[in-house]
Amino acid sequence: MSPKATIYDIAKELNISAATVSRALNNNPKISESTCKLVIETAARMNYKQNKLAQALKSGKSHNIGVIVPRIDSNFFASIIRGIEEELYPHKYNVIICQTHEDEKREIENINTLLNTQVDGILMSVSNMSSENDRVIEKVLEKKVPVIFFDRKKNIHGVSSVTINDFGAAYAATKHLIEQGSSKIAYFTGDRSLEIYENRFNGYKQALIDSGLNLKEDYVIQTKSNVEAGKMAVKKLLKLKDKPDAIFSASDFAALGAIQELKSQGIRIPEDFCVVGFGNEPFTEFMELSISSVDQNTMEMGKVAAQVFMEQINNTDKNSKIEKKVVLNAELLIRKSSSKESK
Amino acid sequence: MSPKATIYDIAKELNISAATVSRALNNNPKISESTCKLVIETAARMNYKQNKLAQALKSGKSHNIGVIVPRIDSNFFASIIRGIEEELYPHKYNVIICQTHEDEKREIENINTLLNTQVDGILMSVSNMSSENDRVIEKVLEKKVPVIFFDRKKNIHGVSSVTINDFGAAYAATKHLIEQGSSKIAYFTGDRSLEIYENRFNGYKQALIDSGLNLKEDYVIQTKSNVEAGKMAVKKLLKLKDKPDAIFSASDFAALGAIQELKSQGIRIPEDFCVVGFGNEPFTEFMELSISSVDQNTMEMGKVAAQVFMEQINNTDKNSKIEKKVVLNAELLIRKSSSKESK
Repeated sequence: MSPKATIYDIAKELNISAATVSRALNNNPKISESTCKLVIETAARMNYKQNKLAQALKSGKSHNIGVIVPRIDSNFFASIIRGIEEELYPHKYNVIICQTHEDEKREIENINTLLNTQVDGILMSVSNMSSENDRVIEKVLEKKVPVIFFDRKKNIHGVSSVTINDFGAAYAATKHLIEQGSSKIAYFTGDRSLEIYENRFNGYKQALIDSGLNLKEDYVIQTKSNVEAGKMAVKKLLKLKDKPDAIFSASDFAALGAIQELKSQGIRIPEDFCVVGFGNEPFTEFMELSISSVDQNTMEMGKVAAQVFMEQINNTDKNSKIEKKVVLNAELLIRKSSSKESK
Repeated sequence: MSPKATIYDIAKELNISAATVSRALNNNPKISESTCKLVIETAARMNYKQNKLAQALKSGKSHNIGVIVPRIDSNFFASIIRGIEEELYPHKYNVIICQTHEDEKREIENINTLLNTQVDGILMSVSNMSSENDRVIEKVLEKKVPVIFFDRKKNIHGVSSVTINDFGAAYAATKHLIEQGSSKIAYFTGDRSLEIYENRFNGYKQALIDSGLNLKEDYVIQTKSNVEAGKMAVKKLLKLKDKPDAIFSASDFAALGAIQELKSQGIRIPEDFCVVGFGNEPFTEFMELSISSVDQNTMEMGKVAAQVFMEQINNTDKNSKIEKKVVLNAELLIRKSSSKESK
């Protein structure tokens, strides 16, 4: 292959400045029509191909969307991303994905990486609440790149969000356990500095209060979202003098670990102990002892997040700012792990 | 915020061309030292900040790596990506991910998207074998952007690959089923135009031959990698006159579907029917009836793919081309779904 012509080659050929060539190629109105025509003809003759990225730098549109999630290896985030893609592909957008592994610094690096690749928007589920990360997001907004939060959000002016009704879902799950006869309900929470976990905790608490039950601090355990953490938490609970008779876990993975540990200690589920998870990960349905869980409407969440992005990017009225807070419903799915009656 | 200075502003200020400014900022040896110094000082005074992307366009280094996988919602690919990230993060690389959903056109779009974002390399697991996609990959190589295949590879000159010993793993799984007393072993295959599935098929076939068993065409069923496909395939098998007594499935998801369908038809596993999957998805271990499977050494595969990339990018000898074919071992994990003896 012969080396490609650059704007400098074209400038030399026509004895004009590279800046003029560049402006002509980008239809800058400052350049006369005749110069434009001459530059474009010469560029074609010299086999000049505009670098798409350089083009994006000029036009400010790359048709790439960045998605940032804490992890891709859960069906939850993978399914939201699927929803985003299904909504955006027909509009010729490409979706590029980064994961934070819940790491604060990695989140900042992901945002900067996506900004540097000139994405037209960032759709993200936040990994942590540090104000340093707020500032990075505000920097993105200053560059007129829309940011949309899904599931895990922060309250930042100008950022729309799509979430589920975490309070309502946690309330329904706890009420369901009470109706099954459980009165000592433990709760596995994620990091409560994240709004979703705080809302779920409040739903759990309100359901207890409304049923005349007390919230016991010993019963609230912060766990990571994995099987091992669920096992550990159950070991802790079973050492209490006043042992619980049910667990509502804000993570399906921790719920699974809990079930494995309870069974290994000879505790029968659901006869002696009920468990409800959160997230409707596929394995909760696969298990012979299927696990009750909350379906978070993931495909819909992704689609709506993408729609909100499209609305923002297509908003030509510079004086009106779109800031939407969409809250979707979640559905409690009652399965074997908490169905005493069907037994 | 005041609008940022561009190279055109600096050029105007110094009454030199934008091209000279640009060259000076990028330490082009054609520019005199005194001009360089003047430009850099002026740029600093005018609060000029080089766009990182523009910088990448010049230097050809973005420190971003693109990863393309068929899907992110399986533990298999997510875990390989984790391995890639763990290896590359310490070298200050960022990892951006695209998924193809096994779609040929989407794969091409992903490659072009990553190229346009100026990635320093593409690590990918191919979704299909079309020659059109070959040409796109060759275009990447022409731009001196290294491509590394993992798991699903093509034979393209100049592309290194990291795979597992699919033949050996399939051979071991089939031998194991024969040792458990199965003699009518069905096989669920993926798309055999992909090398991994062809190699697994050959391993299955060789194990049958070495044990004096015949390959029955009726027993080889192409399935998608999902639960529903596994159910459908079992329904087909159970309609045969000469029904099989075991299944080796090249997909864990299809193996799970097979088990669900077999159980629903009252067939006892492993007493009457043994099942082995492939991939060691976490649910295979979670199930009460745990599913035998092949562990594909995913973290290691990701790490080695990243190491091969690093070797290539650091190879300063322009006359030697690195083309590596790394084949890792896989491990058969025998669990309840194929262990008659432990019952």
